[in-house]
Amino acid sequence: MVREASLRIRPLARHTPVFSSTSINEVAGLDVHFKCENMQRGGSFKIRGASNLILSLSEQDLARGVVAYSSGNHAQAVAIAARHVGAPATIVMPADAPRMKMEPTRNQGARIVTYDRTAESREAIAEQILKETGGTLVPPFDHPMIMAGQGTAALELLEVVPHLDALIAPIGGGGLLAGCATIAKALNPDIRIFGAEPELSNDTYLSLKAGRRVAVQPSETIADGLRSPQPGALTFPILQRHVEEVVLVTDDQLRDAVKFLLMRMKLLVEPSGIIAAAAVLYHRLPKGIRSIGVILSGGNLDFEHLAAY
Amino acid sequence: MVREASLRIRPLARHTPVFSSTSINEVAGLDVHFKCENMQRGGSFKIRGASNLILSLSEQDLARGVVAYSSGNHAQAVAIAARHVGAPATIVMPADAPRMKMEPTRNQGARIVTYDRTAESREAIAEQILKETGGTLVPPFDHPMIMAGQGTAALELLEVVPHLDALIAPIGGGGLLAGCATIAKALNPDIRIFGAEPELSNDTYLSLKAGRRVAVQPSETIADGLRSPQPGALTFPILQRHVEEVVLVTDDQLRDAVKFLLMRMKLLVEPSGIIAAAAVLYHRLPKGIRSIGVILSGGNLDFEHLAAY
Repeated sequence: MVREASLRIRPLARHTPVFSSTSINEVAGLDVHFKCENMQRGGSFKIRGASNLILSLSEQDLARGVVAYSSGNHAQAVAIAARHVGAPATIVMPADAPRMKMEPTRNQGARIVTYDRTAESREAIAEQILKETGGTLVPPFDHPMIMAGQGTAALELLEVVPHLDALIAPIGGGGLLAGCATIAKALNPDIRIFGAEPELSNDTYLSLKAGRRVAVQPSETIADGLRSPQPGALTFPILQRHVEEVVLVTDDQLRDAVKFLLMRMKLLVEPSGIIAAAAVLYHRLPKGIRSIGVILSGGNLDFEHLAAY
Repeated sequence: MVREASLRIRPLARHTPVFSSTSINEVAGLDVHFKCENMQRGGSFKIRGASNLILSLSEQDLARGVVAYSSGNHAQAVAIAARHVGAPATIVMPADAPRMKMEPTRNQGARIVTYDRTAESREAIAEQILKETGGTLVPPFDHPMIMAGQGTAALELLEVVPHLDALIAPIGGGGLLAGCATIAKALNPDIRIFGAEPELSNDTYLSLKAGRRVAVQPSETIADGLRSPQPGALTFPILQRHVEEVVLVTDDQLRDAVKFLLMRMKLLVEPSGIIAAAAVLYHRLPKGIRSIGVILSGGNLDFEHLAAY
């Protein structure tokens, strides 16, 4: 499915660059290959999954429109893919979503419905819209087509750097890592798979320890794309099968890593997107890894927030 | 000489990426191809010229060391190239050079001699050191080997995007644009060549109007790499021959452009490095250009300065 996705999404998703830097390698103590999804269309990897699902819908389904709920990057991706195929899009977004994520979504012609993240259920609001319109839900992670689409990021990375000891990606709901781990293990069964999660939203870390899906309280971590309170019903068993360890990263480490990569590599990566890099830069991986692929998953960050780091 | 330089500097200079973006093209109203020298080793194009000269020196010359004066990026480049060949390097830098430029120079093992930019002559200080050491001066722009090295940026760009209507680069002392214009015109005699200069340090603009080299007062433009008060004796005739127009850009436009490319393309470019992009984004070029190559010449910017934009 990841291979099929890579063909399907070609009209919409960019082949993002893969960068490495000798000075970063010195700091990390191993060879690091960054897959730059911060430079992806819409500013994050989310276009991969969203376009994989939307480009597989029938004309009839598209005419009734697509609906999504998202803190931002998935919203923008759904809006871009829907516009591409001429389908109306409705996005349910938290009222406090970063401007950098809300405005481009509106600019793509999507209808935005806001809600109070602490008091309302985005799923319930989306459900109501789906009932009224007969549209199709494009979920942020818990769908085979979404996971397969996200996995194309690792497929492209491994096409450029085939012989990696390990791969690490951020975990929100787990769609990115589930897709990436699946294709990476298929291409190289020996590759070691790691995830990175905010200490303030460690639901997958806890779930893997417990052996079942555990929910945490809604979190205020600056990694706003990784606040989902529990892993998906479909993503979790895949993560259980493939993930060796989930590394927890503090918000302070995220801020530091954002500034560090900005200054050293001249790349803007948002906190949610830099968490896997932070895990590597803070030497949080087990010994014995000489080379690692790191997904920099997004770069949408308000300038005012960055300036305050 | 540019072709020879591209072989000589291979051990030291990266083939930097060339990026384009549909959203940038929409804003600019033409196809823009960015040559990302902000991602070059040392954070700017300067390693090209410095390593071209230094890698052509004899062992005897290298043993006596190299000397340079620079506001920052050239300093860092000379330090990197000197370390690579094991030659001692002494750099004369203004005491108020950005930290982002001074610290890496020191970290490369160079000796730094600071001076007061408003009261002392860096040339005189360098001259004194050269007398004492018998070392070789690596000038920032006014030397055939420096110009030829800088021209490799355009050579690489045109290898990726051969059919450009135009090329634009920043002008400090004119070494980058002299080298780039020479190779671009050799490869494509119809290509139109533009330069960009800060309104606050418009010496080349005035010199081209006057038909002779004119000096301006030392300037406080935030484009600290473009403050040289007059074009070089060797660079100027080359610019006279090839440059159609010099576009002037204000400091406010530079700040805006830095933020704009950071948010849209996730790339950090310093004010001096972004000036050619600013000229394009502010629609300052004549009509009739459909595609342009833009040199983003450097990315070394203190975080505190960026945060204040």
